[in-house]
Amino acid sequence: MMKIEKTRFLSFCEAILALAPECRVWLKKEGIEVRVVDTANVAMVSAKLPKDAFGEYNEESGILGLDLPRLKAVTGLMKTGLLEIEQDEKGKLRITDGTTRYSTGLLDVNTIRKDPNPPDITLSATIAIGAKELQESITAMSKIGDKIRFSLQGKTLTLTTEGDTDSLVKEIEGDMVKSLKEPVASLFSTDYLKEIGRVIKDAEKVEVSMSTNHPIRIVCVVDGIELVYLVAPRVEE
Amino acid sequence: MMKIEKTRFLSFCEAILALAPECRVWLKKEGIEVRVVDTANVAMVSAKLPKDAFGEYNEESGILGLDLPRLKAVTGLMKTGLLEIEQDEKGKLRITDGTTRYSTGLLDVNTIRKDPNPPDITLSATIAIGAKELQESITAMSKIGDKIRFSLQGKTLTLTTEGDTDSLVKEIEGDMVKSLKEPVASLFSTDYLKEIGRVIKDAEKVEVSMSTNHPIRIVCVVDGIELVYLVAPRVEE
Amino acid sequence: MMKIEKTRFLSFCEAILALAPECRVWLKKEGIEVRVVDTANVAMVSAKLPKDAFGEYNEESGILGLDLPRLKAVTGLMKTGLLEIEQDEKGKLRITDGTTRYSTGLLDVNTIRKDPNPPDITLSATIAIGAKELQESITAMSKIGDKIRFSLQGKTLTLTTEGDTDSLVKEIEGDMVKSLKEPVASLFSTDYLKEIGRVIKDAEKVEVSMSTNHPIRIVCVVDGIELVYLVAPRVEE
Repeated sequence: MMKIEKTRFLSFCEAILALAPECRVWLKKEGIEVRVVDTANVAMVSAKLPKDAFGEYNEESGILGLDLPRLKAVTGLMKTGLLEIEQDEKGKLRITDGTTRYSTGLLDVNTIRKDPNPPDITLSATIAIGAKELQESITAMSKIGDKIRFSLQGKTLTLTTEGDTDSLVKEIEGDMVKSLKEPVASLFSTDYLKEIGRVIKDAEKVEVSMSTNHPIRIVCVVDGIELVYLVAPRVEE
Repeated sequence: MMKIEKTRFLSFCEAILALAPECRVWLKKEGIEVRVVDTANVAMVSAKLPKDAFGEYNEESGILGLDLPRLKAVTGLMKTGLLEIEQDEKGKLRITDGTTRYSTGLLDVNTIRKDPNPPDITLSATIAIGAKELQESITAMSKIGDKIRFSLQGKTLTLTTEGDTDSLVKEIEGDMVKSLKEPVASLFSTDYLKEIGRVIKDAEKVEVSMSTNHPIRIVCVVDGIELVYLVAPRVEE
Repeated sequence: MMKIEKTRFLSFCEAILALAPECRVWLKKEGIEVRVVDTANVAMVSAKLPKDAFGEYNEESGILGLDLPRLKAVTGLMKTGLLEIEQDEKGKLRITDGTTRYSTGLLDVNTIRKDPNPPDITLSATIAIGAKELQESITAMSKIGDKIRFSLQGKTLTLTTEGDTDSLVKEIEGDMVKSLKEPVASLFSTDYLKEIGRVIKDAEKVEVSMSTNHPIRIVCVVDGIELVYLVAPRVEE
């Protein structure tokens, strides 16, 4: 059984929904963990909610198969405040806000796409920037083109996109965490970044790590949820 | 001729529109009255607006055939404040806010579905509950299933619905008006209740009366309009 | 090169977009000017933005061919404040808010519909009225009919429209600027007036000039932009 703020549980569902509609939730002593990859194997998210982010938490181990759009819809119907979530003796998931009680079957975890392995990548440069600014820049880029070039040097992250007859460039200043002398740059699909942008915009800061023609890693904490997104680069023509 | 607050006239139109798009309005010395049943004969509303709910009222008798969606749209275009409504010498309905003057033909009252007889039903239990809470619960239920079981015992009204693989239960505490020892319960279509919920949500309190496998009666006052809704039960399989 | 407030530039684009999706902008010493007519030759707008409405302005002469929906979309992505707009050495249009830099090809001015000649019409009566009131009246009329009769006498402008079975009349009181003894009246299509209404609603006052069965002229200033709209009358059946 666990108790968790309604809004935090919603944020958790949405962080994963950015990439996949269902997931395995690993119940561990120290909290819950999810790792999913999207259908096209382009983007991956690792989400952790530590024990102390719950109002109450006494799970030892287990796996739950969650249907995220359904859970999100139902959670929206609950009152603000702590929700109680547990698996009953028949294996059903029960969620209640005290007066509203929801019960649903869980997904068979064997039917859910396998969790990806944690990737073993070293990226050469990292910058800390405003999450809202990154999200707004991604949104702006997506109105012009379907790919965004990220280029990082020192404490400036530059986003560039090309449309048919126009182009947009945006410079974001941040705090340098780790840098090379020469700039690093990679190209990414707008689609994945837009979905991720919607989730991370409520973080205070995000850390963006890159190497040339390597995946981008976006790390942040949203409402106590520890998030790591990884998006594979597009090959440049 | 009658004068009535724009918002009150809109609420009156909407209370009937929940079940039917046209109606006969009975003009009486003591105010106006409408009684309509929906096309499928499942739900009925009786709406009364007493003389003193008007800014001015000097009708003795008469019947008006109203096209409610049209009246609602036009009333929305008027200024806030008192509207003057009257039938002119050519039999047209005239509505004005002082500077905007609308004129429309009335419906032939013989073409409108006959008013239902006032039903003669005694229901065994009644509870007074918050209107907003009832409406929100109905909305939540409608996201899961298409039927809602209402169960009333003492001062607790319990709503239950079943989806394909899930279920939702909501308890509403109220003030007992009339009760039996054993609980009473009936099943209703979500559709009618949702429409009615939209109207009653602005009431302060509603009185809900039930018997087992009998219609539900919902009585309330919305902006001075006296409303009685009656919905027939669904037979349980 | 010119600098202009983002919101003012958006208003300028929208004032022309009410009638046409592209335009020639004439750069002159004293500011910029646009004159367009709609595809059906029914309505015309002349828009001027004088030099002192810019944060900075140092153009001597030139013509720019603008794709207005695209410019409007991109300007919306920029930060609030002054935008810098200039044509670069390759003939591309560059817009920047300091950190976001947009670049786009211009339209070939020879492919844009020719500017209309300034019409030489004398209209016999003029009234100054509230812009918001005119716009709201036009919107209300458009819900009932597709033509609006404007009738002007003394300091009262009367709008009338007829639906299939109903009619709406609205009187707007204003300040008489120029008047005849007898009333003047003409009929106009709702479509053009609705588009123009959306633009002028933010003006403080508008001056409306009319003669019987002549075009209507609507003159106002919106956020420093000097606007003159002219709409041809419909022939009455």
